[in-house]
Amino acid sequence: MRKKIEVGKKVLATNEQYAEANSRLLSMRKQLCLNLISSPGSGKTTILQETIKHLRDKFRIGVIEGDIQTSIDAERIAETKAPAIQINTEGACHLSALQVSSALEQLPVDELEIIFIENVGNLVCPSVFELGENAKVVVLSVPEGDDKCAKYPGIFARSKVLLINKMDLLEKARMDFDIERVQRDAKRVNKKIKIMAVSAKTGIGMQDWYGWLEEQLGYVKSK
Amino acid sequence: MRKKIEVGKKVLATNEQYAEANSRLLSMRKQLCLNLISSPGSGKTTILQETIKHLRDKFRIGVIEGDIQTSIDAERIAETKAPAIQINTEGACHLSALQVSSALEQLPVDELEIIFIENVGNLVCPSVFELGENAKVVVLSVPEGDDKCAKYPGIFARSKVLLINKMDLLEKARMDFDIERVQRDAKRVNKKIKIMAVSAKTGIGMQDWYGWLEEQLGYVKSK
Repeated sequence: MRKKIEVGKKVLATNEQYAEANSRLLSMRKQLCLNLISSPGSGKTTILQETIKHLRDKFRIGVIEGDIQTSIDAERIAETKAPAIQINTEGACHLSALQVSSALEQLPVDELEIIFIENVGNLVCPSVFELGENAKVVVLSVPEGDDKCAKYPGIFARSKVLLINKMDLLEKARMDFDIERVQRDAKRVNKKIKIMAVSAKTGIGMQDWYGWLEEQLGYVKSK
Repeated sequence: MRKKIEVGKKVLATNEQYAEANSRLLSMRKQLCLNLISSPGSGKTTILQETIKHLRDKFRIGVIEGDIQTSIDAERIAETKAPAIQINTEGACHLSALQVSSALEQLPVDELEIIFIENVGNLVCPSVFELGENAKVVVLSVPEGDDKCAKYPGIFARSKVLLINKMDLLEKARMDFDIERVQRDAKRVNKKIKIMAVSAKTGIGMQDWYGWLEEQLGYVKSK
């Protein structure tokens, strides 16, 4: 048991070193890098597609797509004409900072202002692996239920933003989802977390998200 | 790197030994044990609640609930009067066979015929940790999208049954979900997988699931 824990720490420590290197590089280039984390199917790719369509005339955006297999998500991003790199983890349940480091080499980084990393769909493991990002953004979709912040607190404690997605379904499918419970549970583990209720599909609340992105990019550039 | 892989194998090997012990015990007692795996919020607990309500007069059912934190799910199961044990993994992304072994000691096992294990909500990690179950049942809900069997093939390759849940939303929320694509992708990695389209909430397709459970219990008892 003890040995397992030690090796676990060593893996995290090695990851941490790559994460720091990524972070230094991004900071030198004054790029905003966000790590999107959620369960499978919460709508991360759709959020990115809409964000790129909306902001591509204003900012230069690139995407690193993490999936266990397939390049479905990178192809969806490519439709928006933004540069996208697909990483296949081949079974692994999260992206590592080393994988991101090699993806950063393949992106036309000198031209980019915002880099989104879409992590493997998993509400647990990706939360403890730093990638060098400026912030984590956790996405929770309405159909997943309002008890998720209580049941999976780790990622909500570590994220700067919580996007509650698929808000259009609340009314359309008359879903039993207590948004105040989600807000309360998220704030309990993370007082500072910024919560935005959105629907990437219909556009509800997305202006707040775009505004937040612009503000964050401003901070990064002014440093 | 090499060391990491060796330790990984060792952890799995130790888990395997506990899983075999659980399996021997369950088989001796002629109990059917199913390991339910899905993303967070696919509806595993609701499926179990409805299954227990429907079958409790016919079979004696117990539940082992795996969650990172809280006892929300075990409390929901307790409403059905079925015995339920909550395991909190305190951050770990899957149940282990050792945890299940200790939960089996706390359940009134001599009186039970069917034991459901509801794993931590995670489509990746739980798929490689055997718990001693007779079969894995993977749940995919309609709002998660029809690309999930292609993107997370491991769990679909290892499950005996795929329950496609929240079928009521297909029509109610006019969702873009190609069920034939799901069936095709699942069969591609697992020819024998039995696929049932259900809605635990409205009851659609649940009779097939109850029939399958009864059939499986018959096999286990006749061995």
